[in-house]
Amino acid sequence: MQPLEEAQQLFWSEFKSYRTDEEEINSREADCRVTSRPVIARLSSPFFHAAAMDGLAVEAKDTFGASDDAPLTLHLANGQAVPINTGHPLPDGKDAVIMIENAVLSENQQKATIRAPIYPWQNVRKVGEDIVATELLFPSNHRLSPPDIGALLTAGCPKVMIRIKPKIILHPTGTELVSNKEPGQTPPPGKTIESNSAILAALAARAGALPHVSPIIKDDYETIKKQILETVRSDADIVVINAGSSAGSADYTAQVIEELGRVLVHGVTIMPGKPTILGEIEGKPVVGNPGYPVSAIISFEQFVVPLLEHMQGLDHAEPRVIQATLAKNIPSCGGMEEFRRMITGKLGKQFVCIPLKKGAGAITTITRANSILRIPSSSEGETRGSTVRLELLRPLEQIEKTILCTGSHDLTLDLLHDLLKKSDPAYPLASTHVGSLGGIMAIRENMTHIAGSHLLDPETGEYNLSYIKQYLTGMDVALVTLTHRQQGFMVRPGNPKNIKGINDLLREDITLVNRQAGSGTRVLLDYELDRAGLDSDAIKGYEFKEYTHMSVAVAVMSGKADAGLGIMAAARALQLDFIPVTEERYDILIPREYLASQSIQQLLNCIHSGQFKEAVEQMGGYSTRETGNQVL
Amino acid sequence: MQPLEEAQQLFWSEFKSYRTDEEEINSREADCRVTSRPVIARLSSPFFHAAAMDGLAVEAKDTFGASDDAPLTLHLANGQAVPINTGHPLPDGKDAVIMIENAVLSENQQKATIRAPIYPWQNVRKVGEDIVATELLFPSNHRLSPPDIGALLTAGCPKVMIRIKPKIILHPTGTELVSNKEPGQTPPPGKTIESNSAILAALAARAGALPHVSPIIKDDYETIKKQILETVRSDADIVVINAGSSAGSADYTAQVIEELGRVLVHGVTIMPGKPTILGEIEGKPVVGNPGYPVSAIISFEQFVVPLLEHMQGLDHAEPRVIQATLAKNIPSCGGMEEFRRMITGKLGKQFVCIPLKKGAGAITTITRANSILRIPSSSEGETRGSTVRLELLRPLEQIEKTILCTGSHDLTLDLLHDLLKKSDPAYPLASTHVGSLGGIMAIRENMTHIAGSHLLDPETGEYNLSYIKQYLTGMDVALVTLTHRQQGFMVRPGNPKNIKGINDLLREDITLVNRQAGSGTRVLLDYELDRAGLDSDAIKGYEFKEYTHMSVAVAVMSGKADAGLGIMAAARALQLDFIPVTEERYDILIPREYLASQSIQQLLNCIHSGQFKEAVEQMGGYSTRETGNQVL
Repeated sequence: MQPLEEAQQLFWSEFKSYRTDEEEINSREADCRVTSRPVIARLSSPFFHAAAMDGLAVEAKDTFGASDDAPLTLHLANGQAVPINTGHPLPDGKDAVIMIENAVLSENQQKATIRAPIYPWQNVRKVGEDIVATELLFPSNHRLSPPDIGALLTAGCPKVMIRIKPKIILHPTGTELVSNKEPGQTPPPGKTIESNSAILAALAARAGALPHVSPIIKDDYETIKKQILETVRSDADIVVINAGSSAGSADYTAQVIEELGRVLVHGVTIMPGKPTILGEIEGKPVVGNPGYPVSAIISFEQFVVPLLEHMQGLDHAEPRVIQATLAKNIPSCGGMEEFRRMITGKLGKQFVCIPLKKGAGAITTITRANSILRIPSSSEGETRGSTVRLELLRPLEQIEKTILCTGSHDLTLDLLHDLLKKSDPAYPLASTHVGSLGGIMAIRENMTHIAGSHLLDPETGEYNLSYIKQYLTGMDVALVTLTHRQQGFMVRPGNPKNIKGINDLLREDITLVNRQAGSGTRVLLDYELDRAGLDSDAIKGYEFKEYTHMSVAVAVMSGKADAGLGIMAAARALQLDFIPVTEERYDILIPREYLASQSIQQLLNCIHSGQFKEAVEQMGGYSTRETGNQVL
Repeated sequence: MQPLEEAQQLFWSEFKSYRTDEEEINSREADCRVTSRPVIARLSSPFFHAAAMDGLAVEAKDTFGASDDAPLTLHLANGQAVPINTGHPLPDGKDAVIMIENAVLSENQQKATIRAPIYPWQNVRKVGEDIVATELLFPSNHRLSPPDIGALLTAGCPKVMIRIKPKIILHPTGTELVSNKEPGQTPPPGKTIESNSAILAALAARAGALPHVSPIIKDDYETIKKQILETVRSDADIVVINAGSSAGSADYTAQVIEELGRVLVHGVTIMPGKPTILGEIEGKPVVGNPGYPVSAIISFEQFVVPLLEHMQGLDHAEPRVIQATLAKNIPSCGGMEEFRRMITGKLGKQFVCIPLKKGAGAITTITRANSILRIPSSSEGETRGSTVRLELLRPLEQIEKTILCTGSHDLTLDLLHDLLKKSDPAYPLASTHVGSLGGIMAIRENMTHIAGSHLLDPETGEYNLSYIKQYLTGMDVALVTLTHRQQGFMVRPGNPKNIKGINDLLREDITLVNRQAGSGTRVLLDYELDRAGLDSDAIKGYEFKEYTHMSVAVAVMSGKADAGLGIMAAARALQLDFIPVTEERYDILIPREYLASQSIQQLLNCIHSGQFKEAVEQMGGYSTRETGNQVL
């Protein structure tokens, strides 16, 4: 196992001088392509003396002496002055252009009166003023831009020599993989939808390469070997096998590369991305890419993308970096460089970043992330409140406009997110879920713009207010009702254990799945148990906790538990039955200092819109009768 | 005429709710496309309980009690433990995975010994851990990225609804325009190569649109009208006419739009870009784009690009901004917002920016620029040394690596530029030309990394040293010889006035074109005149000055002058004859503080390379016998 930089050097240095072939293409099609040799101007621009203004072409000496006191008349009829448009060639013998605004034409357009002289070559673009034939227009390894195309055409270069796109062949391998073509189609048992090749192909295309995805290869040593050898001997510039780079029983990539060529690196001390194999077969780079999607992406970006760019003579662009305050402790196992996916937003003057889950198998940890925190292998983690260096995955201004949302989750937040993006694509809503009380704490520590909460005060039957009073003393926050929603027991389809209400939780044959302390749903359950005079100690599974409505639903679905309290939408999502228990209010807390910001105003507009309320009502289990009410 | 922001609002507000239609495409092809509606997950991920590690699937309770003191044996033969690879589904009844590293398999692979228990669901990715069916995957107006494609496929969405690309039709208009298809072909007299449509098409494509360039339309009112109407009534989303937006005799665009629809804006107080027309015909946006290439680009970027993005539900990305020190005074005419194209580089800790020429006709002022300085209409310009706000046209790190080069120009600098980019695409060389003495001054004021100079000391016959002593007192600079080169008189082909040497300059029938004071060539001419005992006052045209070798060549070619002193390569470029006068040394000055930087080291490596010397010798008029010598 090699550290990242060492592995990169070992790999890249093998292919240092490798460049793709060159080809001549139409300059009009050359945007984003890279010159393979210096481009020399063939024509000057202008290639004639050209009028720089609309006006009259004249010989400057004919205008000498003109003044306010002694206006001078020029004759158009005999060609002393010739009307000319911008860009047009100066007639022979003319050496200056009088701006049309500075000449008064006679009614019959035969004469022009001027009140000031002009000097020779005034308002004239002289030959070669812009480009001189034979000069260097662009050096080699220059990535052409739209204006560059204009320069090419103008300089008499309607064709240009560029590097052909490096061809990358991606081999998805794995007997368990299937490609899914029909929306919503569940793959056969034991099969997994192959998606990495599509991600890697898109990344390769963004790096200027021509990706080709081969059919899925089964986990069979000889088949893999045959395929790879065939591909290496094709016109491919680089071959990637995904996956088969770990130590599982069917991970043949390393063996195959070893047999056919050389393994340069086997394992890199990065996480995700550790089981990366970098090799060479018959002079071509061959990469064993890890199987987890986030591992596949990070490994590909660290090793393959820069090589694809290099092959075209392109410089690798490093990501933009900012400093941000870390919202949570992140422990890290030393010895590995960790790439943690983060959600970052701007709170007042500072950036705040929140780590997403660690799991390399969760593609949403990278689709939802807008930044990456790299924790060096020498570190044992980062502590909450410290300033960290982030690599941005999105433009800075998008991060600046991101609305951070934490606390309890509710599905109507997704509707709100959609509506917000629909109303103005500038404002993304980035949610993380830590339960209602966690959200209130995040507000207290200035780690979020808004927090969802549905904390019932058992004393008063009121929602959220007493908690705000207790935990946000002295802070000025607004409280806006998002919705009322049904909470109830999720049970398996058909309610096989015939659960009718809260009293059934005490039955011997019933196992509960609970929510974590500090979540509104846990508070609600305790309240309802109390009201019913039931003892939580007597409930099997009371101490078995999950962190989201959805995990509770999954626990029920998979038979780990028989019932769990949650919202109707979660039950619906997994086709569980739902036994309503009560209705509760779900509010959003917003520090008043952010209330006037454009992004929050836009969000509030969406909450107040008829479109939002309609969509919420349609979900079932919701009421919008107080939606948008400002409680505080 | 409207100010920029006002014009943008007038224009955009007309098309506020305009979005292109949606279509369903294969998710694998959806990178960079924009969702037209919320994307809901159809499948959960994992949609089964999956192994998170390679290892053995077990029931956790079978492992309880295992310890170092009491190792426990699990049986593979009867299915108590089942080998499993990462990502594969847990067999029925299993609820945890023992990592392969934590189990010792018997030789016949029938038994496994473990020394620690695992808890239920350890090393298992539970159903829905990543994605839960029914949850919002992406909101509307979301631009899809490569990882997003993975999420789509994984969530059972192999197809996705996206906005179709807005169709933009570009009409090049102008009787003088021709499209050039053959390299180096000079257009017929009076004709101009049409290039704007290619630039605008590439800009539109980068903005996610589908550009279509129509054949060139002649300057004829009825033809233009007919064409525009036809296009507006086609499936185009936006129509652009380029050019025909000024006040010249053949500028019909405004009239046509006025007749067929409404002109919303005619003229914008920006420079370049003033003669922009923004209109509406039958509900569609129609734009009259200015004719000068830089005007066309800036107008297009300010008005059309954001509208194209809006039509797809995309947010417009603002350029990155930095602060830089201005190297020169920039006067500006008040009342117009000026977009000055700049070259920016990093000198020590500060960014320094140098304005390029103003002319909107010069496409190279934008191809060579890496940044834009916007001078507000309320300003009369910016002063040298002040800190200005720059919008970047290139990634910041590329600007940080840019080598600023000023002073005298020599064509071998172009060779060097090419070689530098060839050796490492990371380092662009950005040249501006201010003459030798101007370069020395730029070194003195820390406004450049390197400066080319060929200043002869008439007293000593030495180059550059005495000037360094005089102007760079106390500064530590290195002086490296780039080349020796021929200087001589450029005369018209065939030398019609039979100029043989410097003495001919005194002839009555000979007009000289001179270089500006402070240029090495001017110093050289004065030295040679002095040596020959000639009086400069007696030379016709001695006071007629140009700023580059090329402008001198153009002056000779166009008959403005009969002879000018310059380098052989300039004469060759315009096919002039060349009468050698003397050989001179051309050096590069480098402040010693920059000498050790990576970029300058890379540059020096190139200067020392055989490849460079060979290329220089091939140009003719050069000698590399001292190339790379460090004089100082």
